[in-house]
Amino acid sequence: MTRASPMRSTSHQWLLGKSTTGAVPLKVLHPSRLPRRSCSCTPVQREQQELGPKVQQVKPARRATRGSYGPEPPKKIPRKTQNFSRGRTNPTNTSKLAKPDTPPDTLDHRALGAELSLFIGDTSSPGSPLFQPDGAHIFQKLQALLRAQYPSFGFQEVITPNLYKEDLWRQSGHWDNYKDAMFAVKGGTALNDDDNARYSLKPMNCPGHCLLYKSRNRSWRELPIRYADFAALHRNEVSGSLSGLTRVRRFHQDDGHIFCTPDQVRQEIISTLKFVELVYNTLRVGPYKLFLSTKPFHEFIGSDETWKIAEDQLKDALNQSGHTWSVKAGEGAFYGPKIDIVLTDKHGKEHQTATIQLDFQLPKRFGLQYVGQEPGIPVMIHRAILGSLERFMALLIEQFQGHWPFWLSPRQLTILTVGESAEVLAYASEMAKQLACPIPATYGLKPLPLSHPRYNVDTDFRNETLAKKLLGAKTKKYNIICIIGEKNVKGKCLDLDFSAQPMEKETLQILNRVKPGARSPRQKIISTKVRGIPGVKLNLYETQLVMKMLCESYL
Amino acid sequence: MTRASPMRSTSHQWLLGKSTTGAVPLKVLHPSRLPRRSCSCTPVQREQQELGPKVQQVKPARRATRGSYGPEPPKKIPRKTQNFSRGRTNPTNTSKLAKPDTPPDTLDHRALGAELSLFIGDTSSPGSPLFQPDGAHIFQKLQALLRAQYPSFGFQEVITPNLYKEDLWRQSGHWDNYKDAMFAVKGGTALNDDDNARYSLKPMNCPGHCLLYKSRNRSWRELPIRYADFAALHRNEVSGSLSGLTRVRRFHQDDGHIFCTPDQVRQEIISTLKFVELVYNTLRVGPYKLFLSTKPFHEFIGSDETWKIAEDQLKDALNQSGHTWSVKAGEGAFYGPKIDIVLTDKHGKEHQTATIQLDFQLPKRFGLQYVGQEPGIPVMIHRAILGSLERFMALLIEQFQGHWPFWLSPRQLTILTVGESAEVLAYASEMAKQLACPIPATYGLKPLPLSHPRYNVDTDFRNETLAKKLLGAKTKKYNIICIIGEKNVKGKCLDLDFSAQPMEKETLQILNRVKPGARSPRQKIISTKVRGIPGVKLNLYETQLVMKMLCESYL
Repeated sequence: MTRASPMRSTSHQWLLGKSTTGAVPLKVLHPSRLPRRSCSCTPVQREQQELGPKVQQVKPARRATRGSYGPEPPKKIPRKTQNFSRGRTNPTNTSKLAKPDTPPDTLDHRALGAELSLFIGDTSSPGSPLFQPDGAHIFQKLQALLRAQYPSFGFQEVITPNLYKEDLWRQSGHWDNYKDAMFAVKGGTALNDDDNARYSLKPMNCPGHCLLYKSRNRSWRELPIRYADFAALHRNEVSGSLSGLTRVRRFHQDDGHIFCTPDQVRQEIISTLKFVELVYNTLRVGPYKLFLSTKPFHEFIGSDETWKIAEDQLKDALNQSGHTWSVKAGEGAFYGPKIDIVLTDKHGKEHQTATIQLDFQLPKRFGLQYVGQEPGIPVMIHRAILGSLERFMALLIEQFQGHWPFWLSPRQLTILTVGESAEVLAYASEMAKQLACPIPATYGLKPLPLSHPRYNVDTDFRNETLAKKLLGAKTKKYNIICIIGEKNVKGKCLDLDFSAQPMEKETLQILNRVKPGARSPRQKIISTKVRGIPGVKLNLYETQLVMKMLCESYL
Repeated sequence: MTRASPMRSTSHQWLLGKSTTGAVPLKVLHPSRLPRRSCSCTPVQREQQELGPKVQQVKPARRATRGSYGPEPPKKIPRKTQNFSRGRTNPTNTSKLAKPDTPPDTLDHRALGAELSLFIGDTSSPGSPLFQPDGAHIFQKLQALLRAQYPSFGFQEVITPNLYKEDLWRQSGHWDNYKDAMFAVKGGTALNDDDNARYSLKPMNCPGHCLLYKSRNRSWRELPIRYADFAALHRNEVSGSLSGLTRVRRFHQDDGHIFCTPDQVRQEIISTLKFVELVYNTLRVGPYKLFLSTKPFHEFIGSDETWKIAEDQLKDALNQSGHTWSVKAGEGAFYGPKIDIVLTDKHGKEHQTATIQLDFQLPKRFGLQYVGQEPGIPVMIHRAILGSLERFMALLIEQFQGHWPFWLSPRQLTILTVGESAEVLAYASEMAKQLACPIPATYGLKPLPLSHPRYNVDTDFRNETLAKKLLGAKTKKYNIICIIGEKNVKGKCLDLDFSAQPMEKETLQILNRVKPGARSPRQKIISTKVRGIPGVKLNLYETQLVMKMLCESYL
């Protein structure tokens, strides 16, 4: 609930501005910057106490100019490599990656981010990572995963401002409790009164969503109203604490706010816990634990009865979730109880990611209401499934170590040619186009439908040995390596190596459904390290089908 | 090239800080705020001289509290209406819309924005519209249209910071020429030196893209590198000039920057002009004119020879576009020639939307290079197809007047029930679910694939006369009105009214392909105004197929 606080500490402690016995003392944050007001956005930076110390010990592999984390310049220019799906040339400078000057850290997301060309940092904007195309691709796929589920869970996306005047922050309570963590904004030359207004960059989306709720009268029949928002958020973390994607000043949340009646809370919590389970299962992260933080012992708002009803609903929902859960007595926020979801990663570290917080206060501050037979003030539920997308990406980067699931991967398939005959090159080029975007050549100037499948397909047509090209492709961790030689041109078939694809069992099931018993003899000759999936021989249509099925199954 | 400048005036004039004979004098902007430096972002606000005076005369229909443009509160609460695809209840308070207190302005996007619940404004953030769910839906569909085409045109999306330090803006030249139009940002309490740095909110994406280009050495084989970015941009327009979606402080561009060798410029321009044509045809806007602005007579950078080569390439590309074009001699930016695309809307007004600008200067300022046999400095092409998405939405709102094409529409289909029998209600509910998201009920806790079709389906199950419900649905301009009574339950069919769907001819073609000669007798009885497409009777599968085909054809 509070930024950078150790997990044992309570929201209540920050409210009182002191720490209790057993709480890890703060090392970095100035006491004035400990906010009272919280929301689903708050846990974003929270568990960096856990991740922080580790990554800070790691020296980023090769810093580029301007303080970036970017990959080193390639020493050698490849003969001809081109990304067909994205129209870029893609130097496969494998020798550098295969034999780095220093052994790559296999855990740190910053070193991996540089190695995989996912993001850089720059001294002109500390704490605001710049996502390179491959990093932006993963970021957007995570967004898309949530967006695809939003209609089923009743969320509607909205777009809200980045800047609000001081008055709004006073109304929301951020000004008193969060001011120092916000970036202050001022217009340029003051041409009129309005330009003199003080603005702040939003650290959270909740006030904007309250404005949208309030933009017209609401009936109880409309509730629950569920707004989702992926807007960029800014929090002025101290520069010394900034690190990679985990400790940042600019980040994006899969933020959501639910406005509902008090008796709808239980169902909303059940639904949100289902959403968490769905997304975490899909991303194959976990296991995770659930914690219920209850009414603070001393300072809180609202009657005991209201708290009891709310906590009972949360307990009911937790019982229905099928997960075990535990209570953190007295650790709720002063404005309402909450559920924390703590994820354990593959390396055994715990991260607080998702959060579900009940808020009785903000709707009152904004005078939100609903009318009907029993008019009332809605309860506001702050919730995030992934939390900070940047931070969740860091977790995924360290989990997958570049072996992204096919659907999420920026390097889905690469085509390697054997020999330099014109037929092979022509056939390989045609296959690259068809695999990247299966459309007829006569499609012409018609726009591609929004739902049209697109895949990230690269090629390596250099005049090198297949072994060398294969080593390069494997170092870059392409999910599928497709080999095309003269036999493939004659047989109209593709030799495919799936050895970098995670989720072997499920992938094999799909391969067996598409073409039972398919095997590629080439695998035996060329394979450097086969991780369980033998090479297969498929035609173009079968390959497209496998790619489609991998995406639809989130493999 | 300059903000708020009349179209006749030249970039060169602003460079010199004076206006020439015939140029409309500035009314609003302080001379200190006229920037020299420009880019594809600049024309965003440009043509508001044309749109501005009109919309400013129009009194916004019903201002909500807090200075919003929001719709008025509904007086009556409906019995039961629910949006199945988005899980919201949706009061169909048709009497208010059908009989407004004041006749709605049929042209102004602000009045339409309120009537159609697309966006609101708020005094806490002037010039930063808050998009309601339906407005956000349209915004995101426009984004999706461009994103779906990006791979074909070789663009790769990136994500870049909102804040940069003063140093970067000095390097880019914005500090000297654009400072007053930028929002100045400062960290809260200064805990260390870095927090004392002066930041500005970015008004353009170009510097961030230069940082990404520079993050590693580039080979000539990698070029062209094409970055796309939808980030929120901020420009500190004077508050008195702010208006709806056309004159804003926060906006989003479909921004793109191409880094290429000098001899690739021609092909890139040809490709960009094709992109413009593709998107404008898809959105059914136009016609549009092309203008080539050439080397300024006095102040410019670069040799005459470089300019000539660049202009010749632009002329070649324009000749290949198949459009007529004209020259604006001496009206290029001081750093390079450019092509302006001027769109004529249905009401005969002209808008500068897309822009393609060559830039020889920024790559030099950032020290960008490419290596190879002939190393050099890349040419940077700033380009935007829609320009400001907000402003383009204003244009589309006024063009379609709520009759959105099906693929873009936030109100795609509504189901009206006849009678109150349990069978009818059950069948209508089932149809609503199936039409909103065609999945088997047994799908359970599996995530929906990213490509899964979703439609915006609302329902009106109130115990009202069909005529009244139909009037409500027509007032809300649903593309398809689906009527379900007892006959439909027995016959497992849907009576569909397509009369609000634009592009009648193309829609009829699709209907005839799905079910030749389909007619609904109900249309004759219930229709209030049939605009050309007669009612049809289809089963569930046929209806789903029609919806899919309408989306895929951008109808």
